[in-house]
Amino acid sequence: RAERVAHFEQDVWSIFTPLALECQAVNLGQGFMNFPPPDFVVEAARDAVTRNDCNQYSHPKGRPRLRNALAKSYSPLFNRTLDPETEIVVTAGANEGIFSIFAGYLDQGSEVILMEPFFDQYISNITMNGGVPVYCPIRPAGDTSKDMPASEWKIDIKELESKITPRSKIIVLNTPHNPIGKVFSREELEEIGALATKHNLLIISDEVYDRLYFDPLKHQRIATLEGLWERTITVGSGGKTFGTTGWRIGWLIGPKALVEPALAAHTRIVFCVNSPLQEAVAVGFEQADERGFFGSQIKAYEHKREKLLNVFRELGLPCTIPEGSYFILVNTDKIQVPEDYKFPDLLWKRPKDFRTCYWLTKEIGVCAIPPTEFYSKPNQVLAENFARFAFCKTDETLDAAAERLLKLK
Amino acid sequence: RAERVAHFEQDVWSIFTPLALECQAVNLGQGFMNFPPPDFVVEAARDAVTRNDCNQYSHPKGRPRLRNALAKSYSPLFNRTLDPETEIVVTAGANEGIFSIFAGYLDQGSEVILMEPFFDQYISNITMNGGVPVYCPIRPAGDTSKDMPASEWKIDIKELESKITPRSKIIVLNTPHNPIGKVFSREELEEIGALATKHNLLIISDEVYDRLYFDPLKHQRIATLEGLWERTITVGSGGKTFGTTGWRIGWLIGPKALVEPALAAHTRIVFCVNSPLQEAVAVGFEQADERGFFGSQIKAYEHKREKLLNVFRELGLPCTIPEGSYFILVNTDKIQVPEDYKFPDLLWKRPKDFRTCYWLTKEIGVCAIPPTEFYSKPNQVLAENFARFAFCKTDETLDAAAERLLKLK
Ligand SMILES: CSCCC(=O)C(=O)O
Ligand SMILES: CSCCC(=O)C(=O)O
Repeated sequence: RAERVAHFEQDVWSIFTPLALECQAVNLGQGFMNFPPPDFVVEAARDAVTRNDCNQYSHPKGRPRLRNALAKSYSPLFNRTLDPETEIVVTAGANEGIFSIFAGYLDQGSEVILMEPFFDQYISNITMNGGVPVYCPIRPAGDTSKDMPASEWKIDIKELESKITPRSKIIVLNTPHNPIGKVFSREELEEIGALATKHNLLIISDEVYDRLYFDPLKHQRIATLEGLWERTITVGSGGKTFGTTGWRIGWLIGPKALVEPALAAHTRIVFCVNSPLQEAVAVGFEQADERGFFGSQIKAYEHKREKLLNVFRELGLPCTIPEGSYFILVNTDKIQVPEDYKFPDLLWKRPKDFRTCYWLTKEIGVCAIPPTEFYSKPNQVLAENFARFAFCKTDETLDAAAERLLKLK
Repeated sequence: RAERVAHFEQDVWSIFTPLALECQAVNLGQGFMNFPPPDFVVEAARDAVTRNDCNQYSHPKGRPRLRNALAKSYSPLFNRTLDPETEIVVTAGANEGIFSIFAGYLDQGSEVILMEPFFDQYISNITMNGGVPVYCPIRPAGDTSKDMPASEWKIDIKELESKITPRSKIIVLNTPHNPIGKVFSREELEEIGALATKHNLLIISDEVYDRLYFDPLKHQRIATLEGLWERTITVGSGGKTFGTTGWRIGWLIGPKALVEPALAAHTRIVFCVNSPLQEAVAVGFEQADERGFFGSQIKAYEHKREKLLNVFRELGLPCTIPEGSYFILVNTDKIQVPEDYKFPDLLWKRPKDFRTCYWLTKEIGVCAIPPTEFYSKPNQVLAENFARFAFCKTDETLDAAAERLLKLK
């Protein structure tokens, strides 16, 4: 066993997803949809597998049709004409895309600045490539014992700058943010961008939830700010965009010179991405606008967000109100887990929120994710009293969750 | 740009596949099928994308249905009852599976013994994970100026042993072999296995062409030899098995303790493999036997092999007759490329077979792959006078290739 994997603990997903299944809990844990993808995208997938040219290797960069569709859909959002030949790379999910960026950029000891909480896979993606994660917390500026908009979770830009050293190479931004649901404001992006420019850092902007934001705080792209296109790789996700998390289609967008090292790594790691589902995602983008898909998807998610927020309001459990993504961070202070409850040993080695979420799954029948998984060890104390609930679920599922959660009253 | 990707040259696939397209050459280069996958597998894929439970994340280990189907299909071939829970991991193509093994096992300076020629991606997969490839040639024991069975390409077992050092960790075996088409005999496997045991090496047995062998030399599995299950991870490929190279479904089979480090890496690199096509490959295995699919596929490939061999016989170009896989290594000594032919600069930096294959693609209209891509620099001289032709193509395509190749007469 190599040093790079020797210290891995079991990841939170393979603890809670099987647990939810086993307990027949309503699963508001792992962020995947339990409703079908849009018909026109499913139809395109059904069609693709019957076509000879869609069942064999694609170009490592991605299928031309998908790169063209992405360029067309994203160019107006980036305020520039994206070149599908050189500025877009299709990856095996956003995850492999991010791994490939780190593989393409990090040398032994290179530092990567993360704002925490952060999507848990970043850490292994960095350390497996010889990098060192350096953490700066995003802290609630408001009172988390009340409902609070996600925008009140703030970075202290001085603190962020203090984390930068001569070894810093990359800063990772995630907006809309998982698990906070924060959509970074233009001012925040400008401050972060200025730091990156001053210290010559590559920016990875993880925007996998870019089509899922709620008025009035619209998602903004750091790559569109003055001078930042040149140092930013933006990461996107077909799974989040079209409700197909199991299709493993992601993409990187950025200047040719920036995406090339990631493409070089990606080509060696997976060679290429599955062809038929790339084709289907291409059709998705080709037809999304005329169908008004993104707008109606946002409406649907807004409704789901309200539905789930109302449950916690009724329970008097304070929430971070997300401006984007499909997660709600809930303050669990008032949830009373019996002191003598028998937890499996494994859970005593983890922070308190693991036990809260385990108990919720097992006894209340609703699965949530412990957010300390998204923190470095020293900062896990900041999140032990929260649980993350996903609302990318059918209304029926959310109703069933509501019914069970109301037992907490 | 990280050191680990800094020295990468353009890979052979992204030179020749686009070139073939551009020249409208008949493409016998990259090993992919231009005929459809079997109907029952395509139907299963069409069905899967309409099912809610097939469009979201799978377990990182792979979908239970696919792991069960693999266990059922492979247990008799391994002479043991494979445990689908712990002894099988589904990967994003065999390529990512192999990458993940290296990521899970290699530390800085760990050595990996390769027999050359070798599938080109091994090298970057090793070096990106800090490993050092060490090469031992497979040499023709017979006369390559005549037709020769692939089995006459031989490893000198003493030479192989001489490559092992205290830093050696892994030995990679590939049978049926790409590009030679050699199926290793039981005796050869025993010798290699004995070395691995003596020096305590992990064996990666890349058996992606395991369902494609031609009588009388049936593919044998090193993991079935006395004492070798315990040190072998066997790699398989849905793309090769069902003619779906673009689906990116591969798998690792081995003892729990051996596959675990690879699973740990894989989970971080791609998280999981695309769900609907996993489901379709599961159905493929469930139905293959009753449909006699593997047997009739072998028959079809045997016919294609003869068809293409006959072209080279007619041209008087000596061939290595493959016992497995879908490649023919052809001695190109007698092909006369005009001395004053204008090659792009790029090609003058590569070995001679790159120019032969370029000329064949451009002027004869048939694309082949230069096999020096599968050699370390010092040993490229061993392969400069060969070209690799793939016969995983429709009969019409092989006929069209024949017609063009006969211009060489
Ligand atoms: C790697 S599975 C995680 C899914 C997801 O993005 C989340 O739930 O945060
Ligand atoms: C990575 S594409 C290579 C396809 C293949 O296996 C081959 O042609 O050798």
